[in-house]
Parts: sequence; C-alpha cells; structure tokens
Amino acid sequence: MDDRIHDHAAVLVDWSARIDPGDNVVVSVAEGAHELGVAVAEAVGERGGNLLAVDNSAEISRAYLQGRAAGETEFDGAPAHELAMLEATDVYLRLGGGRNTAATTDVPSEVRGAARRAKGDVREARLATNWISTVHPTRSLAQQAGMSFAAYKNFVYDAVLRDWESLAQEMAQLKTILDQGSEVQIETPTTDLRLSIADRTGVNSAASVAYDSHNLPSGEVFTAPADAEGTITFDLPRTVDGTRLAGVELRVENNEVVDYAAEQGEATLGELLDTDTGASRLGELGIGMNRGIDRLTDRILFDEKMAETVHLAIGRAYDACLPAGETGIDSAIHVDLLADMRTDSRLLVDGECIQQNGTFRWEEGFAATTAE
Amino acid sequence: MDDRIHDHAAVLVDWSARIDPGDNVVVSVAEGAHELGVAVAEAVGERGGNLLAVDNSAEISRAYLQGRAAGETEFDGAPAHELAMLEATDVYLRLGGGRNTAATTDVPSEVRGAARRAKGDVREARLATNWISTVHPTRSLAQQAGMSFAAYKNFVYDAVLRDWESLAQEMAQLKTILDQGSEVQIETPTTDLRLSIADRTGVNSAASVAYDSHNLPSGEVFTAPADAEGTITFDLPRTVDGTRLAGVELRVENNEVVDYAAEQGEATLGELLDTDTGASRLGELGIGMNRGIDRLTDRILFDEKMAETVHLAIGRAYDACLPAGETGIDSAIHVDLLADMRTDSRLLVDGECIQQNGTFRWEEGFAATTAE
Repeated sequence: MDDRIHDHAAVLVDWSARIDPGDNVVVSVAEGAHELGVAVAEAVGERGGNLLAVDNSAEISRAYLQGRAAGETEFDGAPAHELAMLEATDVYLRLGGGRNTAATTDVPSEVRGAARRAKGDVREARLATNWISTVHPTRSLAQQAGMSFAAYKNFVYDAVLRDWESLAQEMAQLKTILDQGSEVQIETPTTDLRLSIADRTGVNSAASVAYDSHNLPSGEVFTAPADAEGTITFDLPRTVDGTRLAGVELRVENNEVVDYAAEQGEATLGELLDTDTGASRLGELGIGMNRGIDRLTDRILFDEKMAETVHLAIGRAYDACLPAGETGIDSAIHVDLLADMRTDSRLLVDGECIQQNGTFRWEEGFAATTAE
Repeated sequence: MDDRIHDHAAVLVDWSARIDPGDNVVVSVAEGAHELGVAVAEAVGERGGNLLAVDNSAEISRAYLQGRAAGETEFDGAPAHELAMLEATDVYLRLGGGRNTAATTDVPSEVRGAARRAKGDVREARLATNWISTVHPTRSLAQQAGMSFAAYKNFVYDAVLRDWESLAQEMAQLKTILDQGSEVQIETPTTDLRLSIADRTGVNSAASVAYDSHNLPSGEVFTAPADAEGTITFDLPRTVDGTRLAGVELRVENNEVVDYAAEQGEATLGELLDTDTGASRLGELGIGMNRGIDRLTDRILFDEKMAETVHLAIGRAYDACLPAGETGIDSAIHVDLLADMRTDSRLLVDGECIQQNGTFRWEEGFAATTAE
C-alpha cells in the first residue's frame, strides 16, 4: 500500500477528526475507497475508537432508489436504524472515491428528492457529529479531472498532506482582517464587486473539527456577506449536476442577482437562480488558500480551496459566519462559482489591498498598488 | 449482471427474510459480494424496505483489530452506535463472499477474543432480528472448494435457487417423524450410534425466518439429542480455524465423548473437545436434505446441508429444539462433523428405517432391510 494512504488516514483521524479512545466512529466507504478504508480502520483502532464501517456504494444507492421507484412505496420518514446509529455516533468519516462519477445519473429526480426529504433527520444527525468528508484518489476521479491516475494521486496527496498547523496560522491572519473589516472589494478587468461584511465572522477552514471545518482537504477562509453590489465574472468553469457552467457573469444589486449570462450552461444557471428566493442571493464569500492545489479538477471539494482564487456561492449561508440570532440566506442550494485571481486582480478590505494578483500582503512578492 | 444474482436476491428478500414495506433492513456486504449487494438493494427498494448498507470487509476488520492490538486500548463494551442501529433493525442480511478466506488469519487470537467478548450485546441484538446469512460466489470461495469460478457459480445457484416450498414440505415429513420419535440410530460399517430425542423438537430448516431458519441455502432438519451412546465415524473432512479435520472417530457414553481419534487434525480435535464442559457433548443432530448440493466445498454453510449426509455438532445446542424450560448443552463452540450416508448406511427412528443408503422411505428407490 502506498505510504501516502496511511499518511492520509493519520491526518484524517488526528488533525481533522481528533479521535479519542472510546469514540464511536462511523467510516463510510465508497466503492473505490477500500484501501483508504483499510488504513483508516487501522488508525481508528490504534486510537481506541469503536469502528462501524458503512458501505457508501453509488451503485447500491442507485439500485435501491431504482427499486423504490419501481415499487412505488412512499418513503415514510427517516429510517429508524440509520437515525439511531447516527445519534450514537461521535465521529463520521466519509471516504469518497467512486468508480464512476455518473453512477446515479439515471435515478429519476423525483425519487432522489423524495429520498432526500425523507432523510432530513438523518442528515441533521450526521451534521451534529464531528464529521469529515474526504476522498480517496480513484481512476474515475482522475478521468473527471482529465489526468492520469499517477498524476491525480500526486495531486490529491499534495492537497491533503499539508502542514495544516502552519496553514491554519496563515489563514488566521486573513480571518482577523475579515472579522475586523466592513467591506470587501474584488477587482479584476471584468469584476467590480463590493461585499458588506460588517459584524460577520470568518471561518478559518483548516480541515479540522477544531476549526469548524469539515473537509479534507480544506484551506479557505469564508464568510457570509450581508450585502453585495456590482458585477463579477467567474472565469473558472465547473460542473453542476452534470452541466458545465463556464464564463458566468452576474450583476448584483442589494445582494440580489438582477442579471446573468454564461458562455456555457446559461439555462441551467437560470434554473439554479430560480430555485427559491435565497438562490439568487450571495450566501458565501470564500478565499482559497491551499497552495497544494495547483489546478482545477472539476470537483468542488478541491477547486474551491485552490490558492489564488475566490468563490462566491449563490444560495444558503453558513450559520457560523452570522451574528448571533441572525438568520442568513436560506435556500435549498449552495452553488459555488470561482474566479481566477492570478493576474490583474486585487482584493481589498475597507479600501486596503490585502491580495494582489493572488499574492497576500504577508507573502513574498506582494507589491500592492495604492487603493483607489 | 448474471440473472441468477437477481434470482438469489429475490429468494433472499421474499422467501428467506419476508421483507415488508417499512421494514428497517441492514445489508452487510462482504468485499466480494458487491454485485449481490446491488441486486439485494434493488429488491429491498421494490418491497419498500429502508436500506442501510454496512461494509463487511475482512481486510477492514483485520486492519481495525491490528490497530487495536497496536494501540493497546481496552475494549469498553458494545459500541453504542452499532448496538443502537441493530436494536432498530427488523431484518439483517449478511452477504458473505470475500476475496481471501485467510484474510484475518494474522489477527492475534487474544485481540479477536476481546473484540468478540466486547460485542456480545451486538451479537445478541443481531440474532434478535430476522437475520439471514448467505454468500455470493467469489473466486476465493471457488478456490477454497477446488473448483473453477464458473463451476462454483453453478454449484452455489443450484444450492440456493431451489423450490423451497416443496423442500419445506418434504422436510416436514422428517420433522414429524423426529418429533414423534424417541430414539435415532445411525448405522454404517464403522458407526453404531443411538441418540435419545424424546420430547425434542426438530427444526425444519427451510431457509426462511418463517421456519426459524437463518441460512440461505439451508435444507436440513436438526434437533438436539438428550443423550447419546455408541461410536461414530465422520468420514467427510472439513476445515476448522484453518486446520483440516478428516477421518474423525468418536466414542460416546452418556452423551460424553470418552475417546477420539482422527486421521488428520487429531490435536486440534482434542483442543476443541477440551474447550469447556459442553464441548465434549453432542449438541446437534442434523440431517442434510438439499439435493442441489452435490459435493463438499469446505464451507459448512453448504456442506452440512448436503443430501445423503448427517452431521453431529460437538458443543452448543439450539434452544428451538429443547422442551420449554430446559437448558441444553452450553458451550463456546459448535463444531459440525459430517458423515457420508450414501452407501452401506441406515438411519432408524424407534427401530424403523427411515433412510437407507441416502434414500428416504418416501423417495423412489427406497428398499429398507428389516430393522434388527
């Protein structure tokens, strides 16, 4: 077994999930994640956790939902056995990595929706644990990224096997700036967007439950804007529900998208914005800071953490960013869209440039032009 | 997918487990049983059951136990999440079929034992569900059987895809004879054993929870002898914990093994008999009746159901066979040993021959000699 699989397991169990002796741990294993499952099981055993391995096979999920569709039996609330398991779970580790990213595409959307609604309590119970989502590199994901399997493995481990302590310290600087600031400006030749963030709290997403962060890899600082005004071009493409969105442009007034266009996927973008009231509002501003991620791979877990990018999400805001008692933007969707900051860009907080052309002001090579 | 996989799933879900809409179903999937898992998931969905798939990988189990051994943390009772899951489970389907029958052989036996003891409540909760154990044919199991993969698949489906209703009716005849009888005699050139079965109840093990039967395939009638006297040769070999037992001979007085010998594995046989007080007593008499099983494959799930064989177990008796209020033989072991009845054999109940040379008296070709 590749040593890096054991390293990945150790980061997951120690840095990310902070497993203690006696913790009840569920490890959810995708079809292609068996080897990581083995390494994680050993690490959980060494830490004295109690292991229960759950099979998270996309093909089994698809077959079950196809069966439900054929049987025409109504879903009847959350399954009691799954709910009882999760309510007694301390740590939930989701090991993604399938064998076919399109494995469930032929499940009728109404069945998928009915199952999702029936399992609302299951989802809430899972989110109440110390959960972490990660992926094991598979050929299927390499294909999605347009990469050889060997190159993709290098990519994944470069992203995952970071010095997280050091990155957390670096990200803390940005969190402090955002927490103290009132307004963020994003400037590129095609973007001029102002986001009000007064009283908002940034999340230092350092890939650990100790930082309210639930992804491995992570490496971003994000917050929830109170207001937004201006135009933005998302020049980095992504795939949403099988449709490629590229060259997305939004015009925003009073934090509402009032005009949109896209070079690819414009109709899908329109449907997404129409989902509900919150879907046409900006629920998140995220700033990627993981320099182990050096390219897009069409998987948002990685893409949104890439250094020298920023992303905004249309839809739901995260509670952790909001002042106590305030409910943020609510929506059934949260779709991140990415902008490239490598060239001709500036990120300003209260008029002060904190990043130019992808380089933060505390990094070597930073040379900000004066704020306007 | 081989149509027989879907047929197997249908027998499992409908005949064996009797799944109803709303049942909470756990499907435990071994490493090599993915395809059967897919077919079972679809069938559970069609019947309106709630599916939770559990990963039963031998390699993950081994890694976890090796980790526990290295970490030296004491097991602390049954894991609450697994117990809570099982207590809310109606049906537990165990889909065996690994990729290496020796996958866990290097786990230290004391760790295995400690884990088994810690999970006693988990085991009890699982046995309190409508559980069924079956196997998906894998190359590993074909190898264990000394068969090609194609031939082994034919073997498994011949054993599993029976007319169970019809076999249940046939087995009911034998159950009636045993329930009404007081003494069973097994006679071959090297065996003369008398088993007292007065007041005992036979189990018509027809591969369905409706028959108190939890194996698919099944196809045996079994009971728990009250007493035993005589000698028996088990001329069919089997492997127990990695050791081959062959040519086992037992001499029994007052249902206690007073002398033993074996052509192979005699030392292991001695250790088994020494496990505890119950281990040197005969806890079960079983009579194989599945004519779909035409050869030994070194997996007891199949071997003990083979037509024209009988088996006796040293160790624990099943409660279902005992008169109300009586506790049968208790032991940590239950090791089945098999005798060939194809030639020069008679099975008698209260002096009357019910099977000769493997043919029951209700079958074509039966020609019993007069009882002695």
